[in-house]
Amino acid sequence: MRAARYYGEKDIRIESVDEDACGEGQVRIAPAFVGICGTDLHEYLGGPTFAPVTPHPLTQDTIPITLGHEFSGIITEVGKGVTFSVGQRVVVQPTISCGTCFACKNNAENVCYQGGFIGLSGGGGGLSDSVVVPEKSVLKLPDNIPLDVGALVEPLSVAWHAISAAPLTPDSTVLVLGGGPIGLAIVQCLRALKTKMIIMSEVSKSRQNFAREFGAHHIIDPLSSDSVAISRKLSGGNGPDFVFDCAGVPASIITACQAVRAKGTVVNVAIWEKQIPFQPNLLVFKEAMYTAVLGYRRRDVQAVIDHMADESLTPAKMITSKIHLEHLVEGGIKALIKDKESHVKILVDMGSKL
Amino acid sequence: MRAARYYGEKDIRIESVDEDACGEGQVRIAPAFVGICGTDLHEYLGGPTFAPVTPHPLTQDTIPITLGHEFSGIITEVGKGVTFSVGQRVVVQPTISCGTCFACKNNAENVCYQGGFIGLSGGGGGLSDSVVVPEKSVLKLPDNIPLDVGALVEPLSVAWHAISAAPLTPDSTVLVLGGGPIGLAIVQCLRALKTKMIIMSEVSKSRQNFAREFGAHHIIDPLSSDSVAISRKLSGGNGPDFVFDCAGVPASIITACQAVRAKGTVVNVAIWEKQIPFQPNLLVFKEAMYTAVLGYRRRDVQAVIDHMADESLTPAKMITSKIHLEHLVEGGIKALIKDKESHVKILVDMGSKL
Ligand SMILES: NC(=O)c1ccc[n+]([C@@H]2O[C@H](COP(=O)([O-])OP(=O)(O)OC[C@H]3O[C@@H](n4cnc5c(N)ncnc54)[C@H](O)[C@@H]3O)[C@@H](O)[C@H]2O)c1
Ligand SMILES: NC(=O)c1ccc[n+]([C@@H]2O[C@H](COP(=O)([O-])OP(=O)(O)OC[C@H]3O[C@@H](n4cnc5c(N)ncnc54)[C@H](O)[C@@H]3O)[C@@H](O)[C@H]2O)c1
Ligand SMILES: [Zn+2]
Ligand SMILES: [Zn+2]
Ligand SMILES: [Zn+2]
Ligand SMILES: [Zn+2]
Repeated sequence: MRAARYYGEKDIRIESVDEDACGEGQVRIAPAFVGICGTDLHEYLGGPTFAPVTPHPLTQDTIPITLGHEFSGIITEVGKGVTFSVGQRVVVQPTISCGTCFACKNNAENVCYQGGFIGLSGGGGGLSDSVVVPEKSVLKLPDNIPLDVGALVEPLSVAWHAISAAPLTPDSTVLVLGGGPIGLAIVQCLRALKTKMIIMSEVSKSRQNFAREFGAHHIIDPLSSDSVAISRKLSGGNGPDFVFDCAGVPASIITACQAVRAKGTVVNVAIWEKQIPFQPNLLVFKEAMYTAVLGYRRRDVQAVIDHMADESLTPAKMITSKIHLEHLVEGGIKALIKDKESHVKILVDMGSKL
Repeated sequence: MRAARYYGEKDIRIESVDEDACGEGQVRIAPAFVGICGTDLHEYLGGPTFAPVTPHPLTQDTIPITLGHEFSGIITEVGKGVTFSVGQRVVVQPTISCGTCFACKNNAENVCYQGGFIGLSGGGGGLSDSVVVPEKSVLKLPDNIPLDVGALVEPLSVAWHAISAAPLTPDSTVLVLGGGPIGLAIVQCLRALKTKMIIMSEVSKSRQNFAREFGAHHIIDPLSSDSVAISRKLSGGNGPDFVFDCAGVPASIITACQAVRAKGTVVNVAIWEKQIPFQPNLLVFKEAMYTAVLGYRRRDVQAVIDHMADESLTPAKMITSKIHLEHLVEGGIKALIKDKESHVKILVDMGSKL
């Protein structure tokens, strides 16, 4: 079968590999649509970061590994004892966890001390004609959610999990820094919760437009306006209750900490490439909280599927392009690196015949 | 009357100034003992930071201002409508707040948007023969707490407030970075709450000994041992539940974030002199929280007084020296700057005859 395999920095190859066997408690899936995400770009440009260079403690795999962690697909085989059936439309929650560490035992398997992700840490990936995953990683996709939209469940789950880290109320004023796929997903999740005021700060004009379309109440261009002053004014002089950092640049952490109100919360969603200069006093003098999120739990994924099914989340417009597997690097990864302005989410159409 | 007045960097003068009038709702106090604290040193060495160079919005004062924010004393005059009486032994909660901003209206007057401190922001200070403060800033000192120990109520209140920012249980494992007056006060407050495991990391040998005496269960010398590895081992491989940063140096924020367990909380108590390099991923991959505290609320001060009165807090040994007002700079501020090894808390004995 075909698989997109990551060998290291700037080295992704579409190869022919053997299928894994589908054992007890496992499910074989033919991926339908697979999202390309910033983490894939980071691995391509500067990795390996997540991809294991020594055997991953849980998957035992080492690079090359198969990419693709945001995907929908159709079940083609079920192992012994599995309650799913062949032909079902599903999405995969790619979290890999040990089940025994402190985090796993305390309902935080997303930060398992040995954790990883299908499609990044070995254990197969969505960018292949077939992938075998544990039954517990699979969730059913309701009939009214198309398979391409199903591939958006993963980034929406990141956003759903992120907003659940903040004690939001419908009255909250929220500032979102960065309107890439994750920032736009957060705007949508906040709208689904009927948040009173959602302010988006984003430099790209087209992404500003997306944010407006997805329901942000105010858009700030941080290059020409003062995000701190404007968000403070919009929140009655107090500062926003919550700030989500989905930009992850030296300027955004400062803006986040300066803008947030006294006793407010900054939720960092970004993954950072390197150290940045930081002055903790920004938090001290207002007793603000800085917290960070990673991935999602199964209940976040289920909540997103439920909200997509009842149409309180309708993210289809985030899909700005669909490509075929052989164009992954040129039409997918390099397109996203070169031209963020035109794209939000590029999906790989795996051309499943099922 | 005499007063220690701060004019700016390295310029503190003992001068003769007029007494303020004691108006309605106000209380005049003859300070008995006044603690010198790190904030005073910062103002001396590199200020003005807290001290107002333009009129403070609440006190209207500009430097020179009278220093001294950690003090006990005796009431010598009461204004109209005040329920205290002359001769009572008291401590002052130096927080100055506006009463109308978002923070003040939400039980967080310690981070008032216009806030300040008696003894730092104008409005008089403890390092004078008489200071007039609002009745609401005064708390009675029980008979069994000597006036010198009363001057320790303020730093203990910082610690009490800091630990209340963490959802501690008696089972918690806590790492305290830095064993100065604040770190040592935190150890004592944790002991008063019967915390199971208190680990202190401190470079100075004499302060390590103080930490042991005040009840830390384990002492780490960060120069010769790995605080992250040791605290992880002591917490059953998970990492401490809470880390208090009372050192405020580039190394301590990294240690704090590396050591804390998944979903744990770092409480920053330090005030930072400048920006430091920081990698937020340290928090991301464990979904840890980084929070910061400033000052205390009245209930923290009252809790400390109550615990001193019932002897569950016995901080007297923190007092390593007592000096007279005329020796403030040489015997107090410069002694603390030059010789941290010998000192924890130096008190100015105001020599009150009352
Ligand atoms: N925590 C997690 O589990 C998780 C999961 C997925 C992605 N991520 C991370 O979340 C972040 C966002 O992901 P994405 O896919 O949306 O990335 P992206 O790069 O597509 O989006 C970032 C956006 O921020 C904007 N931006 C840059 N500087 C800005 C500034 N100063 N102010 C405002 N906006 C600014 C950019 O124009 C861009 O649109 C990335 O760091 C990614 O690695 C985290
Ligand atoms: N948040 C507040 O309201 C508040 C109130 C008072 C003081 N503070 C701040 O709290 C901090 C502590 O105050 P303090 O009076 O105890 O200060 P201090 O300078 O006396 O104590 C700091 C201690 O940290 C130790 N240290 C330095 N590097 C270390 C390292 N890498 N690991 C472990 N220990 C290290 C030093 O040896 C010293 O004993 C200061 O930053 C001070 O400004 C904050
Ligand atoms: Zn992703
Ligand atoms: Zn685990
Ligand atoms: Zn102080
Ligand atoms: Zn106020």
